[in-house]
Amino acid sequence: MTTPLDALPLRDDLRGRQPYGAPQLHVPVELNVNENTHPIPEDVARDIIERIAASLLTINRYPDREFTELRQALARYLGHGLTEANIWAANGSNEVLQHILQAFGGPGRRVLGFPPTYSMHSIIASSTGTEWVEGERDPGYQISPETAVRWIEQTDPDLVFFCAPNNPTGTPLPLETIEAAYEAARGVVVVDEAYEEFAPAGTPNALSLLPGRQRLLVSRTMSKAFAFAGARLGYLAADPAVADALRLVRLPYHLSALTQAAAVAALDHTPEMLAMVDDIKRQRDRIVERLGELGYEVWPTASNFVLFGGVDDPEALFEWLLARGIIIRNLGIPNHLRVSAGTEAETTAFLDAMAEYTAR
Amino acid sequence: MTTPLDALPLRDDLRGRQPYGAPQLHVPVELNVNENTHPIPEDVARDIIERIAASLLTINRYPDREFTELRQALARYLGHGLTEANIWAANGSNEVLQHILQAFGGPGRRVLGFPPTYSMHSIIASSTGTEWVEGERDPGYQISPETAVRWIEQTDPDLVFFCAPNNPTGTPLPLETIEAAYEAARGVVVVDEAYEEFAPAGTPNALSLLPGRQRLLVSRTMSKAFAFAGARLGYLAADPAVADALRLVRLPYHLSALTQAAAVAALDHTPEMLAMVDDIKRQRDRIVERLGELGYEVWPTASNFVLFGGVDDPEALFEWLLARGIIIRNLGIPNHLRVSAGTEAETTAFLDAMAEYTAR
Repeated sequence: MTTPLDALPLRDDLRGRQPYGAPQLHVPVELNVNENTHPIPEDVARDIIERIAASLLTINRYPDREFTELRQALARYLGHGLTEANIWAANGSNEVLQHILQAFGGPGRRVLGFPPTYSMHSIIASSTGTEWVEGERDPGYQISPETAVRWIEQTDPDLVFFCAPNNPTGTPLPLETIEAAYEAARGVVVVDEAYEEFAPAGTPNALSLLPGRQRLLVSRTMSKAFAFAGARLGYLAADPAVADALRLVRLPYHLSALTQAAAVAALDHTPEMLAMVDDIKRQRDRIVERLGELGYEVWPTASNFVLFGGVDDPEALFEWLLARGIIIRNLGIPNHLRVSAGTEAETTAFLDAMAEYTAR
Repeated sequence: MTTPLDALPLRDDLRGRQPYGAPQLHVPVELNVNENTHPIPEDVARDIIERIAASLLTINRYPDREFTELRQALARYLGHGLTEANIWAANGSNEVLQHILQAFGGPGRRVLGFPPTYSMHSIIASSTGTEWVEGERDPGYQISPETAVRWIEQTDPDLVFFCAPNNPTGTPLPLETIEAAYEAARGVVVVDEAYEEFAPAGTPNALSLLPGRQRLLVSRTMSKAFAFAGARLGYLAADPAVADALRLVRLPYHLSALTQAAAVAALDHTPEMLAMVDDIKRQRDRIVERLGELGYEVWPTASNFVLFGGVDDPEALFEWLLARGIIIRNLGIPNHLRVSAGTEAETTAFLDAMAEYTAR
């Protein structure tokens, strides 16, 4: 006898909803959720295990609620004169964003975003009771300073969410847009830089804008460049007062001793962990070039994934690839699909399949 | 130049708040946060490390969003005919409670609790926008079926929170109270059984009430009996529809691969992990007996901690113990303090100090 969900006293705004669900299918070539498909190096794994083993000696005790060592390691990694006081972290950048919306959003407040963008932004807005309002991008998924300011003036948001580079389009965001948005907004401006490490070398990022901007928050993740999606570590750089604000809404001891140990160990090996990033960028550039040759409309990308248009029937192509052991992502953008850059072999498998599909 | 918190556009209801904070002081005898002070056995640690090492091979990928193996292991541990469909888990039972309040509480809804009780219940209610209403306990911190029903009728709550045994008083909760509350309530009834394993052997728990009660939720944790506070694993048993409801509000991939691996490995060693529980119960009983002999008012407890009254100046006693390297907990209950049962040596250190203090 199965109880239907509707028999429970669920909140009205959740009725009829479906849970978030990129399918977790296991096929030979998984290029659907922008993971880093390169496993972590063995010697890094050994150091992680050593640190975790040490943490098990006191695993009966609550973890360091302030995750001080981890905040220090993250500050060192980011540079820009940041210290542990500027850092916040949580179980994935989704939880960082949830903390931000709990502290600065919530009922009676609204957040402005620019779709198409990371789908969790609006979902977390909704689950924290924050109204999600949508601005429109310029052609080519860009956001000029003028466009950002116009939407801020029009919607008077309590928070503004940018995604730089944008997911799922890969579009870079000029610093001028962030600066102009910050000046125009009375509220918090969040720049989600989950894919920042995949930008062309030397591209400035929003960390450089932090000094003097206490309402500017830059979120990052170890999931992508650090190949650490399974370990769930998102983080944030901002004025120390922001971290104090987030301390008011986080659940105590939200970061386990295992997470803290694993992340600190991985950060100890930053150069090695980031060595794969260059290879991924090469594979991404191969995808951009080859899909262009095949006649698809390929959007400029500063991330580890590529959005391409000109697909007559995205669902048919998705299924065709899946039948060949390759999964990519259909995000419901008409005539478009998104693919993550994989290893050289995975990328080749995808591109060969695309050539075959296109030539049919 | 430090930015004051008030300079940020913080939510109004958070202004002036202090973050949750049992002090994380490190002293020789830490009996303040109801941790299991017994480290986990070495061979269990070895198995945890082995499983974590295996999980690192694919740590670049997102973890199993459905944590199926862990739900299976938790169901096996709980027994009572439960299967993985009945189980939910999160980063600590605090996050489980947050999921419950996000799905069944929130703005416009209210939760009934019975203070003094676990302080996070009202804090999480507040952070999810759920109104927290308070019922009064009977003498001796008890809640009779009649009292529960009276408060439910009086406040018409969307959720009822019980804590069994209650924290910080240690008071057991009769199943009759849960049954009566369930009949009287239209909403969800949550029984927080974080300390259930410390009840006298053979004491029935709320799991036995689950069949046929789709609005009854029983939350547990591995922090206490499993000595796993640092690993952050709380869980829940209920009708499968409840897990479906919580899928709507959890952040995707909320449980890391490390957490899943560690918890599964620990559950593989259930008898060994629980072997310490009997010793802790013996130490708790020593505390109850000895503090009684010393003239304190000791409350009956079915948990790993003891609340005792008859303290003229709780803060003075707290500080006197702290100066001797022993930390216990002052929860602001007039003339009362709470102490967790430790190892035999820790418990002896505490009781000897209490004898000395009392004889001054």
